[in-house]
Amino acid sequence: MRETEKGSFTLPGESGYEELTLQLARRWGADMIRDSDGTVLSDELTNAGYGIYSTICLIRDHNEWAKAHPEQLQQTFLVTEPRSGTEVCLSIPLLEDFYKDQFRVNESPESIKYWQVYDRTSNQEISRTSWNFDSKIQSVIISETRPFHEYTVNFMAYRIWEEISMYNHVTNHWEKEHLMPLDPRHEETRNYLYNWLKTWCEEHPFTTVVRFTSLFYNFTWIWGSRERRRNLYSDWGSYDFTVSPAALKEFEEEYGYCLVSEDFINQGKFHVTHMPPGRRQLDYMEFINRFVVDYGKKLVELVHSFGKKASVFYDDSWIGLEPYHSSFKEFGFDGIIKCVFSGYEARLCAGVPVKTHELRLHPYLFPVGLKGTPTFAPEGNPAKDALEYWNRVRRAILRQKIDRIGLGGYLHLVADYPDFCRCIEKIADEFRSFKELHEKGEVYTLPIKAAVVHAWGKLRSWTLSGHFHETYMHDLIHINEALSGLPVQVEFISFEDVKNGVLNDVDVLINAGASGTAWSGGSAWEEDGILEEILRFVHRGGVFIGVNEPSAFDGHHTFFRMANVLGLDQDTGARVCHGRMEYEVERVPGLIPDHARVKGKKGLYLTDQETIVLGEEDKEPTITYHAYGKGAGIYLSSFQISNSNTRLLLSLMLYGRKMNLKQKYLTDNPETECAWYPDSGTLVIINNSEKQQTVSVETDTRSIMVSLAPYETVFEKL
Amino acid sequence: MRETEKGSFTLPGESGYEELTLQLARRWGADMIRDSDGTVLSDELTNAGYGIYSTICLIRDHNEWAKAHPEQLQQTFLVTEPRSGTEVCLSIPLLEDFYKDQFRVNESPESIKYWQVYDRTSNQEISRTSWNFDSKIQSVIISETRPFHEYTVNFMAYRIWEEISMYNHVTNHWEKEHLMPLDPRHEETRNYLYNWLKTWCEEHPFTTVVRFTSLFYNFTWIWGSRERRRNLYSDWGSYDFTVSPAALKEFEEEYGYCLVSEDFINQGKFHVTHMPPGRRQLDYMEFINRFVVDYGKKLVELVHSFGKKASVFYDDSWIGLEPYHSSFKEFGFDGIIKCVFSGYEARLCAGVPVKTHELRLHPYLFPVGLKGTPTFAPEGNPAKDALEYWNRVRRAILRQKIDRIGLGGYLHLVADYPDFCRCIEKIADEFRSFKELHEKGEVYTLPIKAAVVHAWGKLRSWTLSGHFHETYMHDLIHINEALSGLPVQVEFISFEDVKNGVLNDVDVLINAGASGTAWSGGSAWEEDGILEEILRFVHRGGVFIGVNEPSAFDGHHTFFRMANVLGLDQDTGARVCHGRMEYEVERVPGLIPDHARVKGKKGLYLTDQETIVLGEEDKEPTITYHAYGKGAGIYLSSFQISNSNTRLLLSLMLYGRKMNLKQKYLTDNPETECAWYPDSGTLVIINNSEKQQTVSVETDTRSIMVSLAPYETVFEKL
Repeated sequence: MRETEKGSFTLPGESGYEELTLQLARRWGADMIRDSDGTVLSDELTNAGYGIYSTICLIRDHNEWAKAHPEQLQQTFLVTEPRSGTEVCLSIPLLEDFYKDQFRVNESPESIKYWQVYDRTSNQEISRTSWNFDSKIQSVIISETRPFHEYTVNFMAYRIWEEISMYNHVTNHWEKEHLMPLDPRHEETRNYLYNWLKTWCEEHPFTTVVRFTSLFYNFTWIWGSRERRRNLYSDWGSYDFTVSPAALKEFEEEYGYCLVSEDFINQGKFHVTHMPPGRRQLDYMEFINRFVVDYGKKLVELVHSFGKKASVFYDDSWIGLEPYHSSFKEFGFDGIIKCVFSGYEARLCAGVPVKTHELRLHPYLFPVGLKGTPTFAPEGNPAKDALEYWNRVRRAILRQKIDRIGLGGYLHLVADYPDFCRCIEKIADEFRSFKELHEKGEVYTLPIKAAVVHAWGKLRSWTLSGHFHETYMHDLIHINEALSGLPVQVEFISFEDVKNGVLNDVDVLINAGASGTAWSGGSAWEEDGILEEILRFVHRGGVFIGVNEPSAFDGHHTFFRMANVLGLDQDTGARVCHGRMEYEVERVPGLIPDHARVKGKKGLYLTDQETIVLGEEDKEPTITYHAYGKGAGIYLSSFQISNSNTRLLLSLMLYGRKMNLKQKYLTDNPETECAWYPDSGTLVIINNSEKQQTVSVETDTRSIMVSLAPYETVFEKL
Repeated sequence: MRETEKGSFTLPGESGYEELTLQLARRWGADMIRDSDGTVLSDELTNAGYGIYSTICLIRDHNEWAKAHPEQLQQTFLVTEPRSGTEVCLSIPLLEDFYKDQFRVNESPESIKYWQVYDRTSNQEISRTSWNFDSKIQSVIISETRPFHEYTVNFMAYRIWEEISMYNHVTNHWEKEHLMPLDPRHEETRNYLYNWLKTWCEEHPFTTVVRFTSLFYNFTWIWGSRERRRNLYSDWGSYDFTVSPAALKEFEEEYGYCLVSEDFINQGKFHVTHMPPGRRQLDYMEFINRFVVDYGKKLVELVHSFGKKASVFYDDSWIGLEPYHSSFKEFGFDGIIKCVFSGYEARLCAGVPVKTHELRLHPYLFPVGLKGTPTFAPEGNPAKDALEYWNRVRRAILRQKIDRIGLGGYLHLVADYPDFCRCIEKIADEFRSFKELHEKGEVYTLPIKAAVVHAWGKLRSWTLSGHFHETYMHDLIHINEALSGLPVQVEFISFEDVKNGVLNDVDVLINAGASGTAWSGGSAWEEDGILEEILRFVHRGGVFIGVNEPSAFDGHHTFFRMANVLGLDQDTGARVCHGRMEYEVERVPGLIPDHARVKGKKGLYLTDQETIVLGEEDKEPTITYHAYGKGAGIYLSSFQISNSNTRLLLSLMLYGRKMNLKQKYLTDNPETECAWYPDSGTLVIINNSEKQQTVSVETDTRSIMVSLAPYETVFEKL
């Protein structure tokens, strides 16, 4: 591998381990040193000539102010578990179902105004005259209940323990004061925090970059009272933790209508990110986003006024900060930092309109990993972990430029793991080579523009809601992960975009997910106008790739609204007496990699005898192709990420576009991939597998044939 | 085994094989000789002193009359496959999608009046001014179509080939004239057929029983033009083949509203028996049933007037003849004959209000069986087949009296199969012993009354729609099959019955099936009144057993409306971010047989920490128990018939009712069952497995312990 310049690396420094810090800073090529949750930087480190990152979580760690202004804590709507009885009167204790240290009922009249009591059996709200709140027993008493019917109370509660610190506290059995989250919705708190940050900047002259973790509102995370169900609800993408009487009042003034608690509670289901959002939900998100941007940019300006840069770590209290929202640029952030387990997270980061895109690699320098498995501890193998994570993000970094990488945690832990130190050294060098290639010119892509259509569109590009392991049950995250390293252009569009003509510029349209979800699209498919646009798109040559229950919407003659394009539909029960079209599986040479596997699903049937079945499981089709006009519909009954399935997705795009399955600058081995940088004349070939691989690549000038060690990267100058 | 009287056996005789016929008649104890499709009885046989059954299918085999009255053939509504184009005009050929010999378009104005053209994409009917029928090209021309939208035509066609003979014809490559089905809806045809039957009776003095196969209208069976999808639609329980302009006109006069073709076509889905029926469908069924009963009873009276008996074979053209309808008795049939593969079919037959309940056993005396496998042919083993079928129906016959058994087909085929002849001799003797036990007094049952609730209720007792192999994909047919031989009372009820208080008399309520189906119940579960009745039933001690998606209905806080009784619900996507209650599987001694297996399903979650998980698969519960008031909710994620699962179902009923799992007159081995006839002092123990079994049974007087050969029946006198 060629020599590269050092730099573009953020090292977590640690006071008391100055020698190790500086030694690894040189070895890994760091140009920045950061503190982490639980570490500080000594003067020796801050004066060592490196840039200094300082981590700030603005809204917690101000307990004195919080105690003096308890009405300015953050809040949320909660709903009690359904309760029933055989009498006409029912008493419902409000906090019994919840983790006792997380919430306190907001008993103010402005709060109770929003409470609602529901008969969930008959799906009707109970009149306010039929219930009242008894503060002494912290319960709502309902008179006139119907026997056996189930009742719930929507109410508002203060959150008295900031959730991320609560999690760390409980997990690590800390014995510290609980940190309370402040709500900057209140002007007093807003000013207090502004001045606090100002003082902080004054007192930290060595800090070159303030790293916000993240802004004001955490994703929703509600804990329960029962040990067997501690996590009641956790949605990385939901805005529920931003609510307060003050916010609702301002919303009403701005939007001219009033939200009620049921808009949030939604029968106890809340509005999970995986379901299509409604108009009121979208309005509220816009409203919060506006607030977060307005106050956030003042803080960034403040930081800038001290000659410091401002970066934002995109996790935890990120709500209201939407990197793909048109307003994001207004913050004025200099950089965004994303922790990454997966390729799609690297692409998410790379696509944000800021100057500096930084990845915080895994593993975190902690004894145990996120799921409690050992890392820097006996039986841990952090070098292996680092290599496997790097293998996942590497292919994405080859497709789009990332500016920096770094680590986080307790640096002293790595001292006993020389393998890990070697591994990071190699990764850092490799990363800098990739960055240099991108800087010299664009990476070559096939002439295919793929668009993923779902209910959120661009706003939720790449991610569904959080990390891969939180969303693995959705086909789309597997598709996104596959796309993150493929040599095609990728964009994320909404159904609204479809109506506005975005498909004129698209070659392959992907719709992937279970019926009714945000990812499949739900009721968006009811609209004829949207359907017509997509039919026209395919008819004139576009390719529609549908996965699982694409375009599914009940009520029409077919369940998949794109059934006539796909030549396939799913029976939801009404067609159980209809005969099925018989078929034989066709083998198209080179189309389906040997190890590709698509899990079957029940109830699929061919609607056209022209539909070509390319794969099956248990006598039901799993992969099909159907011509429609000049284009085609391609169906996959599911999609799970693997090297072979990733190649399958690419091959299907090529096949649908009637392009040769063998292309220049494509490896002939699905376990490997390559990226071609014409301006540097450099071909990067990577082995995505843990086994030795042999691979050949056709280029414009010659055939390259190489053998790669497990996970190896090879740079070929052409 | 004790000696039994001979009789109660119907033998298919065959001219040319008189000696064999009479020899087997003696050996099998026949008292009746019948003809079959394709056989005749010689004078020697009709004069041999046996009763004579003669088979009649009234509506076919009158081609001369049919040709003279083509407008009096039976008809049906058909719908073309969806078609689209890019132009504003579309021509849709009506018969292109259908098997050419089955249909002829009814072009009369009275027919076309009912046709409808739909834009299926926008789900809207096209105005009648925008389309017209071109008889020359047998097509409907639609002007003003929207590009890419899919259009279909609902039209009416004569059926020019009676479907059962069409099937036999095509399967056996016959070269005979196609038989056409006459519609007795027309007075002329009605009179013609009446007179024909009169003549027939006059000409057949030896016939003692006229065996109708069955009455006028076949179940729906629509064939397609494509070889890869010959069967377009086949529903054993549907009334579509009864329709005609005349019927619709009379319906309108009687019911005061007009049905349209879309009432039958239903977006091309038709109204399959497996989906909940709507009001218009039920009205139409009542209307047809009334007609079939009125004309049918005239025919039965005619037969009776000749001193003959009238039996009905319950299959093929059975539509309108509903043995569990309150009007069934009006026919005046002396007997019903049911061909049986399964136990539930024996119970179906046994419960019909006629004097003589007869089972036609399998195998049919044919070279090949229903699925084309060899029977009386090389590689066939008809004795084994007979024993296996007998094994399935035997347990049901032990629970409820059957009066006769018999066979059908070509008797000469059995000559080369002495094993088969021995097997039938044994079965016939065994059957007569069972009959005698029933005649001496009722079989003992546990004090449990189980009711199965579904959308059809009593009308579709025991069967869903046809044979087991046609409905195996529905949990309920497996449940019914299990129930058919269990020592509990069983009845089938509708949701309407629930409202009318039928649960006062029920101990265990079973609801089994996929959401939205007739078997789960669909929108019936929306009604609070029904739900309240069932909640009250459980609360005061009843047991609710839910299988797969019981009580499922979208739109409320839970998907299963009985979630609070079951302590379990299913997430349909909106709760993917909600935490799941952790659990440990509890083992209740003796509750779950070793070989019981319940297939898991995705998305289930506990709603209450009191829910007891009794079984799981892939970390999701498959069997749960939850107390509710004095009763309980029991959930099974699926149910497939097997000896062990059958015992599981019984054990769960006992467990739910808080009864001892070990009961007198229950075998201790799930592969075996027993039936206790207190008035005869006889205990019948049967081995339901193909292996030797040891079994013990506790009785009031002593412990019985026996060893049984495969499929053996043992009679113990106590």
